[in-house]
Amino acid sequence: MPQQDRAHATREAILRAAAEEFDRLGYERTSLKGVLGHSGLTKGAFYFHFASKEALAAALVSGQDDLWARMREDWDGRALDPLRRLVGMFHEAAERMAADVTLRAGVRLAADREVGYPGLPSAHLEWEKIIEAYLVDARDAGNLRDGADPAALARTLCAATLGARFISSATTRCADFPARTREILRYVLSSVISDDWLLAGPEVL
Amino acid sequence: MPQQDRAHATREAILRAAAEEFDRLGYERTSLKGVLGHSGLTKGAFYFHFASKEALAAALVSGQDDLWARMREDWDGRALDPLRRLVGMFHEAAERMAADVTLRAGVRLAADREVGYPGLPSAHLEWEKIIEAYLVDARDAGNLRDGADPAALARTLCAATLGARFISSATTRCADFPARTREILRYVLSSVISDDWLLAGPEVL
Repeated sequence: MPQQDRAHATREAILRAAAEEFDRLGYERTSLKGVLGHSGLTKGAFYFHFASKEALAAALVSGQDDLWARMREDWDGRALDPLRRLVGMFHEAAERMAADVTLRAGVRLAADREVGYPGLPSAHLEWEKIIEAYLVDARDAGNLRDGADPAALARTLCAATLGARFISSATTRCADFPARTREILRYVLSSVISDDWLLAGPEVL
Repeated sequence: MPQQDRAHATREAILRAAAEEFDRLGYERTSLKGVLGHSGLTKGAFYFHFASKEALAAALVSGQDDLWARMREDWDGRALDPLRRLVGMFHEAAERMAADVTLRAGVRLAADREVGYPGLPSAHLEWEKIIEAYLVDARDAGNLRDGADPAALARTLCAATLGARFISSATTRCADFPARTREILRYVLSSVISDDWLLAGPEVL
């Protein structure tokens, strides 16, 4: 393996070992020593890649930010109506959370920090705005019934998936997060989707 | 004031000072020193009532448990159908959270512990079962449409209010929690309530 690939593989192995610890224990109770033990690396190799626990956490948080951005780009490139794109993204996000400890750790670190430290810039409120924009497009495209409130719907969907992620993470390491997400989407959206949307294609709710 | 009343008042003042700190900072970053400073008490008076930070947190957590139990008893004694009782309880809980820092701190401490430490007995899963029982009664009483799934509805309502509480607590100290709770109830329940229920009495959604 060329040196650059080896360095990349080592970095990924460290992030994976750190993710296992952060996902299980959260930020405060994770120790660099524990991560080092699980990574099977020397201190020298480790510190070549990451200076501190904070740097590890920052890399995992920024990794999930990047993933969600790529996921949105991918779905926005598909020839689907706004509501089908939104529902598809929620499902994909939930499946990825269940399957990928690195992603799960990044999401947990970001959320723990946000809900634990009042006054921080809120990524959650930004997500509410992003989801609201999809729902405004969905309303304008006739996917939603008249009277549906995109902002209230966005707050409800984001709150429900935030809460479900917390509880699913603590009880099943997100194994049941896809099923919980499916029922949330079904119950929150059932009363607002238009008949046209239901008839337009394969069922996604 | 008789001595017993004074002791009770001092204990309440300490809990209130501790709640202000726990609500803002969470368990880890709250210090006994900070609580003592805000309570305006001597160490002696303080330690007469609480042996440790953990004892303070335990008192706040158990205080909210007691309050919810009383609130349920109160609503269960009213001559209302199961769904109106359930909706009424959600609204009252949200209003109380916005108004009462002692309650808010107890709820935050309980939830932070539960979502932060996988494997703990889950109060949240117990709440899902309690809410599900109300929804089973509601279904049997004809408050819900055929096909509504009480367990899935309970999981969705509990997840949504858990998530909304986290985000509302971090961003507005729960000032917007009642409004967020109202829209959650409306969107989650709209597709499952029966026409009979809507016609049966004053609008509560």
